[in-house]
Amino acid sequence: MNIGIYGYGNLGRAVEISAIDRSDINVVAVFTRRDPDAVRTFGAQAYGREQACTFEGKIDCMLMCGGSYDDLRRDTPEVTRHFNTVDSFDMHSMAAEHLKETDLAAKASEHTSVISVGWDPGLLSLFRLYASAIFPSAKINTFWGRGVSQGHSEVIRRIGGVKRAVQYTVPNPEAVTLARCGAVLTDTERHKRECYVVADGQNKEEIEKQIKDVPGYFSGYDTEVNFITEDEYIKKHCAMPHRGEAISYNMNGIYKEHLSRASLSLEMDSNPEFTASVMLAYAVACVRLSKEGIYGARTVFDVAPSYLTQKSTLNHL
Amino acid sequence: MNIGIYGYGNLGRAVEISAIDRSDINVVAVFTRRDPDAVRTFGAQAYGREQACTFEGKIDCMLMCGGSYDDLRRDTPEVTRHFNTVDSFDMHSMAAEHLKETDLAAKASEHTSVISVGWDPGLLSLFRLYASAIFPSAKINTFWGRGVSQGHSEVIRRIGGVKRAVQYTVPNPEAVTLARCGAVLTDTERHKRECYVVADGQNKEEIEKQIKDVPGYFSGYDTEVNFITEDEYIKKHCAMPHRGEAISYNMNGIYKEHLSRASLSLEMDSNPEFTASVMLAYAVACVRLSKEGIYGARTVFDVAPSYLTQKSTLNHL
Repeated sequence: MNIGIYGYGNLGRAVEISAIDRSDINVVAVFTRRDPDAVRTFGAQAYGREQACTFEGKIDCMLMCGGSYDDLRRDTPEVTRHFNTVDSFDMHSMAAEHLKETDLAAKASEHTSVISVGWDPGLLSLFRLYASAIFPSAKINTFWGRGVSQGHSEVIRRIGGVKRAVQYTVPNPEAVTLARCGAVLTDTERHKRECYVVADGQNKEEIEKQIKDVPGYFSGYDTEVNFITEDEYIKKHCAMPHRGEAISYNMNGIYKEHLSRASLSLEMDSNPEFTASVMLAYAVACVRLSKEGIYGARTVFDVAPSYLTQKSTLNHL
Repeated sequence: MNIGIYGYGNLGRAVEISAIDRSDINVVAVFTRRDPDAVRTFGAQAYGREQACTFEGKIDCMLMCGGSYDDLRRDTPEVTRHFNTVDSFDMHSMAAEHLKETDLAAKASEHTSVISVGWDPGLLSLFRLYASAIFPSAKINTFWGRGVSQGHSEVIRRIGGVKRAVQYTVPNPEAVTLARCGAVLTDTERHKRECYVVADGQNKEEIEKQIKDVPGYFSGYDTEVNFITEDEYIKKHCAMPHRGEAISYNMNGIYKEHLSRASLSLEMDSNPEFTASVMLAYAVACVRLSKEGIYGARTVFDVAPSYLTQKSTLNHL
C-alpha cells in the first residue's frame, strides 16, 4: 500500500517512522509547505504541497498531518477530492461540520476518508461508544495525562513576555478514584494544569495572572505556573509522552447490586508515534473500503474493526 | 425492539434482567426445554422450545443462551433459519466452523446473526484486534479472573466422589507485571487454578490427584485444591464475579525507544449480566443490519461500532 504524508511536523515525521516498521506500507512522498530541499526526512522524498495532485493514482491514501484548526478544516476536504484520506481532526465541536464537508468532497470524487483518527479522538472515543451502547446508563469519565496539551501550550505562548511554554494536563488522583466509583465529574474536577514557562522579561506575576485567567483553558482549573530557564526547558520539556484513560461504571441487576466496570488505559512515550500508528491502521481500512466502492467520509465508529487488517481476524477471537 | 430468549439458565435470566433496564428492548418470550409452567421468570412469558417457530415475525432478534458445546453448535444455525440471532459461542477452536454453519443458515433464510458475543470472546477480542492492527509487532497477553471458569468447574464435577465443585482462574501477579513489560507468556504461566470441592466420600487425596492430572485443564498449572463443606460452598461460592484484562505492549520509534502500552480491564460482580449487556448491544446491531438487508453471520469484528446504538455517535468522539 502506498501512502503520502501531507504536512511534515511532529505527526508527519511520526507517520514516516511508524510506516518504516510496517512491511505492508510504503511512503511514496512527503508534502510540505516549507522548501522541500530543506526538509530532512527518514528516507521519503519531500515535495511542495502544490505537487501533490501530480501523484494521483500513485498514492492509495494520503495521511493528513497538519493542525486541526489551521490546516485540516480546509486541507482534508480539499485533498479528499484527489485522494483517499485519513486525518486526526480533534476539535469536537466542529467534527460534525468537518465530517460533512469531507463527505461531500469524498462522494463527489469517489474517494473514502476517515476523520478524527488517533487515541482521543479515536481509541478512547471507541471505548466511550462501546461502553455507552452496552451500558446505556453508564457513568463514563475520560482522563488525559500526564502529558502535554498542544492547545493549552499554544495559548500560553501567545501571552506577551512568554518565550517558550509547555502545559501538562494532569489527572487529579482523587477524581480517578471517584470515577471508578461512579461519580460524574467536570473537566475542572478531573484535571490539574501544570505550566512551565520561559519568560522574556521580568513581568512573571503578570504572566501567571494572565495564564490563570484564560477562560475555557485555565480559569476554574487548579493551575500551577512554574518559571524555568531556557536551558531547563530544552532539557526536560521537549519529550512528548502522554497518557489517557476512560473509565465506565455501571450497576447491573434487579436491585442494581452488581458492579460492571471497564477501563481502557493508554500510555505512550511518544504521543505523535502512537497517533501515527492508529492512523496507519485506519489507512489500511480506508483503502479497503475504497476498493469495495464504499465512498464518503466516516469516523472510527463507522469502520468495522475487521477492515483494519488484511489478515483473518478469527485468531483474535 | 422485540427479543426472545432461547435457553433460560444463568445467561438467559441475565438477559431478561438486563433488558428490564433498557426502554428500547422488550422481552416477548423465553423458550425453555424445561416445563414452561415450572419456570419462574422476572415477568416474561415462558414457552417450550418447540413453540419458538410460532413467533416468527414477532421477534426481531433471538438471544441464544445455551451452552456452547451442548447447545449453541446445533441451536444457533437452526434458530437462525427463523430469526436473527446473537450468541455467545466461546469455543475458539470451533468458531470458524460455527460461523460458517450459521452463515449458511442466515443467508439461505435472509437473516442476520452475530456470534461469539460477550466479554471474552467479545470485548477483549476487539481489544486484541485493534491493538494488533495498530501495532503489528505488539506483544499481547490476556488475563482472566479472579473468577469462575464454568468449563474447569464442570471437569472437576465429572470426577467420581465429587458432589460440588467450583474452579477460580486467578492471574499470576508476576505474570501481569511481565506482560506490562512485553513478555510473551503461556497460559500456564499467566494463570493459577484455585479449586473448591465438596467431596462425597473419603478419597480426597485421590480426587486431588485426579484434578491435577487432567490434561489441558489442570496439568502443568499451579493448581490448588481445597476441600470444603457443602455449607461453606453455598455460602461462599455461588456468586459469579469475574475479571478480564488484555495488555498490549509495543516499542515504537526509529530506535524502538518509545513505549506504547494499552490495556483494557473489565470487572464484573455478575459475569452473566455483563455478558448479557454486551449481547443486547449486539442485538441492536443485528436488527439494524438485518433491516438494511445485510444478511449472514458475522463476529464482533465485522460490526461497525456505530451499529450498536440508534443514537448519533458524534457526541462520543
